[in-house]
Amino acid sequence: MTDAAAFVPGHVTGFFSAHPDDDPTKAGSRGAGVTLDTGVTVRLEPGDSLELNGEVVDIEAVDRVLNALRATASVVIETELPLGAGFGVSGAAALGTALAANEVFSRGLSENELVTIAHGAEVQAGTGLGDVVAQARGGFPIRLEPGAPAYGELDGIPARQQIEYVTFGELSTEEVLGGDTEALTVAGKQSLSALVAEPTLETFMQSSRRFAREADLLTPQLREAIQDVADAGGEASMAMLGETVFALDSGLSEAGYDAERCDVCLSGAHLL
Amino acid sequence: MTDAAAFVPGHVTGFFSAHPDDDPTKAGSRGAGVTLDTGVTVRLEPGDSLELNGEVVDIEAVDRVLNALRATASVVIETELPLGAGFGVSGAAALGTALAANEVFSRGLSENELVTIAHGAEVQAGTGLGDVVAQARGGFPIRLEPGAPAYGELDGIPARQQIEYVTFGELSTEEVLGGDTEALTVAGKQSLSALVAEPTLETFMQSSRRFAREADLLTPQLREAIQDVADAGGEASMAMLGETVFALDSGLSEAGYDAERCDVCLSGAHLL
Repeated sequence: MTDAAAFVPGHVTGFFSAHPDDDPTKAGSRGAGVTLDTGVTVRLEPGDSLELNGEVVDIEAVDRVLNALRATASVVIETELPLGAGFGVSGAAALGTALAANEVFSRGLSENELVTIAHGAEVQAGTGLGDVVAQARGGFPIRLEPGAPAYGELDGIPARQQIEYVTFGELSTEEVLGGDTEALTVAGKQSLSALVAEPTLETFMQSSRRFAREADLLTPQLREAIQDVADAGGEASMAMLGETVFALDSGLSEAGYDAERCDVCLSGAHLL
Repeated sequence: MTDAAAFVPGHVTGFFSAHPDDDPTKAGSRGAGVTLDTGVTVRLEPGDSLELNGEVVDIEAVDRVLNALRATASVVIETELPLGAGFGVSGAAALGTALAANEVFSRGLSENELVTIAHGAEVQAGTGLGDVVAQARGGFPIRLEPGAPAYGELDGIPARQQIEYVTFGELSTEEVLGGDTEALTVAGKQSLSALVAEPTLETFMQSSRRFAREADLLTPQLREAIQDVADAGGEASMAMLGETVFALDSGLSEAGYDAERCDVCLSGAHLL
């Protein structure tokens, strides 16, 4: 095998609580989100370079994955998802790199082992806490317990759904996660309790909106867009963490926004 | 919602060990297999009937799922998979019924809860021990620990693969699982250890062939077909439990067999 490629879905978190730990495989987040069939493609072969959408970049989580797999590789990442806007692109790049490097360099690791490596790399880079395990699963993942597969626990909302999103700008995951996460954690736990009691899309969207309000992360533009969708009879909330609104069905278009549309991703991350 | 439909992949087990328990959510099997994108479609609406490929049937696992969900339903099941031949059709019917009934009757259960109900129903019906949890996951599931999601533990072989199969006849899962499973269990544990040490397709196929030999389940026709594929340079083994041979890529066609071909199923069971 001289080259390999992997697809990893985008992932929007609706609400979460942060659970730091000195062991990066135990660190993570509880919460819930939606995986998107618009995602990230990673192509990999022996070499020594890293490109994202045609530009040379440095992605710490990807470097850490390559180190863990003792792989010196040329990695080409492509995505239509906005960057730094709450779609889990860094986690997807890490997980896709793990799947593709395992294949190219015949490392013989299992899916759980590769998810563990990518999750740990993302946590250590400080760029995410829960995207990787959600992206490995697909669907509407509920993160019941934080951490890589040996520690984490997942469930899901059984639903098919079209999703729309619009992005107004970036938010730094590192900055928010690096700050005081106490208020986030209290709000996130309440939202998770509500969703576990009734794991439906309606509860997910309600819990996500309550979290965004209580965690005090809404910018004026986000607040307005979510209200516009509600006024048009739809359901929307904010992507954690980005200046992004996501909505069920055509909620954003019906409220007059020029939104991207995709489907929930039925499959988790996989080789192409 | 007046009706709903679900798709559940077929699942072929390569090797397993049986783990009975008085609690059907703890009972199950360890082992490994492959999910197929040829699967089972379940359409469900309020009513009171059960059809499989156009014929009125009785499937105990489906009845048990409907009872657990307090659902009186008309269920229409369709599949191109051979019946009673080791493709997990009864488990798929149970899981698809759980997903669709939850939707039609707004039961508000999570994916893990629905998998638990379908797994328990299949175990109590005596028609399977590990198909449901594998079908819920997709890919090449490795069942590390037996049981429904609260107790079971899964991993996977990271691989994309075309699969071929040919069926010579039926084997009764109930008969084999109802008999002495001691020899199966010893052989199954050895095969699982080998696969966990090296979770690759090559090891999966080798471990499956060793299991089929040691568990003494090979009929002369199965033995011959597996040997024919090997002679043609391919990899094949026996589906547990059916008089079915499955092979990687075009292994069976290249050995001169008139085989069905499909892909590994990237997604687990889901609503349509």
